[in-house]
Amino acid sequence: MNNKYCIGLDYGSDSVRSIIVNAATGEQLATAVFEYPRWKAGKYCNPAANQYRQHPLDYIEGLVYTVREALKQCPPDVAANVVGISFDTTGSTPVFTDENGTPLALLPEFAENPNAMFVLWKDHTAIREAAEINALAKKWDTDYTAYEGGIYSSEWVWAKVLHVLREDAEVRAKAYSWVEHCDWLPAILTGNTRPENLYRSRCASGHKAMWLEQWGGLPDEKFLVALDPLLKGFRERLYTRTYTSDFRAGFLTPEWAGRLGLTTQVAVGVGAFDCHMGAVGAEIVPNTLVRVIGTSTCDILISSYNEISGKLIRGICGQVDGSVIPGMIGLEAGQSGFGDIYAWFRRVMEWPLKNLIGKATTLTDAQKEQVIREAADRIIPALTSEAEKIPIGSTHIVATDWMNGRRTPDANQLLEGSIMGLTLGSSAPMIFRALVEATAFGSKAIVDRFISEGVKIDAIIGIGGISKKSPFVMQTLADVLNMPIKVARSEQACAFGAAMFAAVVAGVYPDVAAAQKTMGQGFEQEFQPIPENVEKYKPLYQAYLKLGAFTESL
Amino acid sequence: MNNKYCIGLDYGSDSVRSIIVNAATGEQLATAVFEYPRWKAGKYCNPAANQYRQHPLDYIEGLVYTVREALKQCPPDVAANVVGISFDTTGSTPVFTDENGTPLALLPEFAENPNAMFVLWKDHTAIREAAEINALAKKWDTDYTAYEGGIYSSEWVWAKVLHVLREDAEVRAKAYSWVEHCDWLPAILTGNTRPENLYRSRCASGHKAMWLEQWGGLPDEKFLVALDPLLKGFRERLYTRTYTSDFRAGFLTPEWAGRLGLTTQVAVGVGAFDCHMGAVGAEIVPNTLVRVIGTSTCDILISSYNEISGKLIRGICGQVDGSVIPGMIGLEAGQSGFGDIYAWFRRVMEWPLKNLIGKATTLTDAQKEQVIREAADRIIPALTSEAEKIPIGSTHIVATDWMNGRRTPDANQLLEGSIMGLTLGSSAPMIFRALVEATAFGSKAIVDRFISEGVKIDAIIGIGGISKKSPFVMQTLADVLNMPIKVARSEQACAFGAAMFAAVVAGVYPDVAAAQKTMGQGFEQEFQPIPENVEKYKPLYQAYLKLGAFTESL
Repeated sequence: MNNKYCIGLDYGSDSVRSIIVNAATGEQLATAVFEYPRWKAGKYCNPAANQYRQHPLDYIEGLVYTVREALKQCPPDVAANVVGISFDTTGSTPVFTDENGTPLALLPEFAENPNAMFVLWKDHTAIREAAEINALAKKWDTDYTAYEGGIYSSEWVWAKVLHVLREDAEVRAKAYSWVEHCDWLPAILTGNTRPENLYRSRCASGHKAMWLEQWGGLPDEKFLVALDPLLKGFRERLYTRTYTSDFRAGFLTPEWAGRLGLTTQVAVGVGAFDCHMGAVGAEIVPNTLVRVIGTSTCDILISSYNEISGKLIRGICGQVDGSVIPGMIGLEAGQSGFGDIYAWFRRVMEWPLKNLIGKATTLTDAQKEQVIREAADRIIPALTSEAEKIPIGSTHIVATDWMNGRRTPDANQLLEGSIMGLTLGSSAPMIFRALVEATAFGSKAIVDRFISEGVKIDAIIGIGGISKKSPFVMQTLADVLNMPIKVARSEQACAFGAAMFAAVVAGVYPDVAAAQKTMGQGFEQEFQPIPENVEKYKPLYQAYLKLGAFTESL
Repeated sequence: MNNKYCIGLDYGSDSVRSIIVNAATGEQLATAVFEYPRWKAGKYCNPAANQYRQHPLDYIEGLVYTVREALKQCPPDVAANVVGISFDTTGSTPVFTDENGTPLALLPEFAENPNAMFVLWKDHTAIREAAEINALAKKWDTDYTAYEGGIYSSEWVWAKVLHVLREDAEVRAKAYSWVEHCDWLPAILTGNTRPENLYRSRCASGHKAMWLEQWGGLPDEKFLVALDPLLKGFRERLYTRTYTSDFRAGFLTPEWAGRLGLTTQVAVGVGAFDCHMGAVGAEIVPNTLVRVIGTSTCDILISSYNEISGKLIRGICGQVDGSVIPGMIGLEAGQSGFGDIYAWFRRVMEWPLKNLIGKATTLTDAQKEQVIREAADRIIPALTSEAEKIPIGSTHIVATDWMNGRRTPDANQLLEGSIMGLTLGSSAPMIFRALVEATAFGSKAIVDRFISEGVKIDAIIGIGGISKKSPFVMQTLADVLNMPIKVARSEQACAFGAAMFAAVVAGVYPDVAAAQKTMGQGFEQEFQPIPENVEKYKPLYQAYLKLGAFTESL
């Protein structure tokens, strides 16, 4: 077992990263990153229309490059001893395929058609279709959105495929089925790409497609046709089963073993979404909330069947059997804006730099550019160091964190942010502090909802950029939540989670918990709530709730 | 009549200005300004404690300098033909005096004692005393605050004198009476300084001292002693009558005629507050609201006895018979923050300039200073030009204008400002636009209150810095109010108002209306409401009212 290696591949929004890990020790031997070249060039996207598409070749080139590049960094015996490979990707990120499961954009006639490409998670072109799905589901015998907290998102597959079918007659004529990004990669690597046969993941192809075992899989054909006759016939060409990521999708084909420099003995796992594998990589255990804290948050919790006992957790965006750890209920929540709210205030602060210094009379253009760039880079660090000095509750400024809507609890993308308690003495660092507190209050609203619905939360694990970069934010979060927060050591929790699943499908470990125990990277830091601060935040949180209730009532 | 000249003196917070005007034509011959030297040096003040005191010598030196300096600019025959002089000052700005009416600070032993000096209008050391006055008035048979909208301010005389009496045993021992700044100047010039005899103005010594003819003048001795026994005995040494500014306080004494370079034929008018004479100078007529629009607003309206018919206008800070135009009811309102709110946002925008550019590596210190200064100066103009381009209602951002509390309607200095409708796309100019709209909405709340209380308002006259400097703000105001706004041509409306009163007391005109007709400087611009904009602002104003009601309910 000492010379068995696993590869985890983490497909993010802008790039893919591979890591090669010693399955016995968890030691990371190598890592490589590849930025999608077509995406980076801005191709196939239209930000003004919220259209974000990715070409399948970006993914394939990234796969080959990052695996070979990482292998180069390893001792020569490693390649032959890689036993498993697993994937996580963003999602829902589906693409239309032909009968062979080939994404249409890989056919010459569709090579430049954005509608034949993967529709990235954050593509919001299908807002109308999502609204139609929600309206119909509320009228139907079965509310197929029940496990999505009652609200189907425009970021999910049915809305996206319906939108593309309506938009593009050529794609419509050729589209036989579709596949999620995380399911397509194992399919091609194992040579099992036929849409009816390929392994579909529990959350991406299950939950996001309103699939539920109890109601016989995907929504009824009648529902789909009522939604739009264009959807007629797809259901029977899709799937009835979904799989957790401890299932082996197969082994590398000889062709792919050759392209990647591996053997055909490499087991390939069923894929999953990045935040779910990230939660595993960050050593999620029951009743510990793993929070991927970046521009937004993705909050993952696992709970036993006993605790959930068949009920629906009100106002939470996902509740899926086995989406994270097989045999446990995976619960998914999140804040639509977290770091994005700080980034927004940074942009507000950049305005005077970018718009006023350019007209300075005494500087060269090069000096101006450098001054603006240097100052902009210092905004968040300088605001943080000033905000830290402001005693809790010493201003009355209270903000809500809904500048990008609210994902949970109780999704409402139409909500907007607000700030109250402003005086002529309110400074930029005071406002920044209130925004940091607002993101922590938004976190507490999620945690409180889980608890009030009977799901215990004892501790938090933080992963993602902000959890490592901002002790101020993390301490505020620990104080507001009145819970300890551990920060995962590895910066590659998602890729590590994929590597753990690869070790399971390769048979190195009997289950994910065992893989976590040995391969886990541990924690670099723990933030403990400070009792004095916990008390001071309580009235501010009440004010946050009141302000939120008011703006929501408008 | 063609060679009769009048002098108007306008004592502001930082400086005094004189103008010499041809009474027959309104032509301005000369003007001079004098900055108070002790004040400018920061003497006798403690901003951290909101203590602002001014030495009587600052006022006297300013009087002599500005009159003589202005005379120098005139043809040689003017001095002999000056027939009247009148004053306006800030207020309530009282000082303790001895039996002769001499401000204590002019006695050698009190020369450096701030408690023996004028307590400037914005001195807020007497907050506790104002609260005590309000509490007692609510319990008393007569609510002496009835004509102050029910709330006595810490900026007014009784609160201030009580505070000083409590603070300073030496002043307490020597204090015989007190006098307002605007009443002291005519007193000394006419040699009639005895506190029992000097001419007291209707608003400064009347309204601000809870004087009302109907209840026999100043509040009852029992009320005052119940407030604090330290006040015992003052009432009988004060006054029972107050005067409007068309009363002549007397003629220049030979001594003062000599010091000023004038004759003893010069009539001296009863003084008044700056905003009241400013309203006259700006050609106030019944049912036109004159707004002095600067850091805050002072809003003056005159209404006939018939219209008011003895009732109290609810929630307005002042209602005084003859405070503006003799024979009319003067109504006073205002916003605690107007330009100050833009200045606050400017400071927020300055933060990145001041805190981040200083650390730039490639610039010299002199370059940094210049860049910061130039950029800071451009903030408001640049925000304005960007904000103007944003269509009304195209963002959902709505703010309240209470960052400095609310003066009217319904004074509440504890209120704070708020901003709602923020998204990740909200830019600095969008927020600035919402702040401009908020100040206009605050104006509408005042106008609406007058109207709902039965006082008609047909049009607005704007004076003060912002009315001339910002067409964007003024157009927004016209659209939100759905009323035309005329901007007074003269930048010295207060001093012109004083000169008009001087012409009346000198007998050149029978009354103020006649003086206005000839001496008025007219208007430089008129903003007409744009019907399309008027409609668009209506829902935003409703949102402002809701947001305000919410934050007020906290």
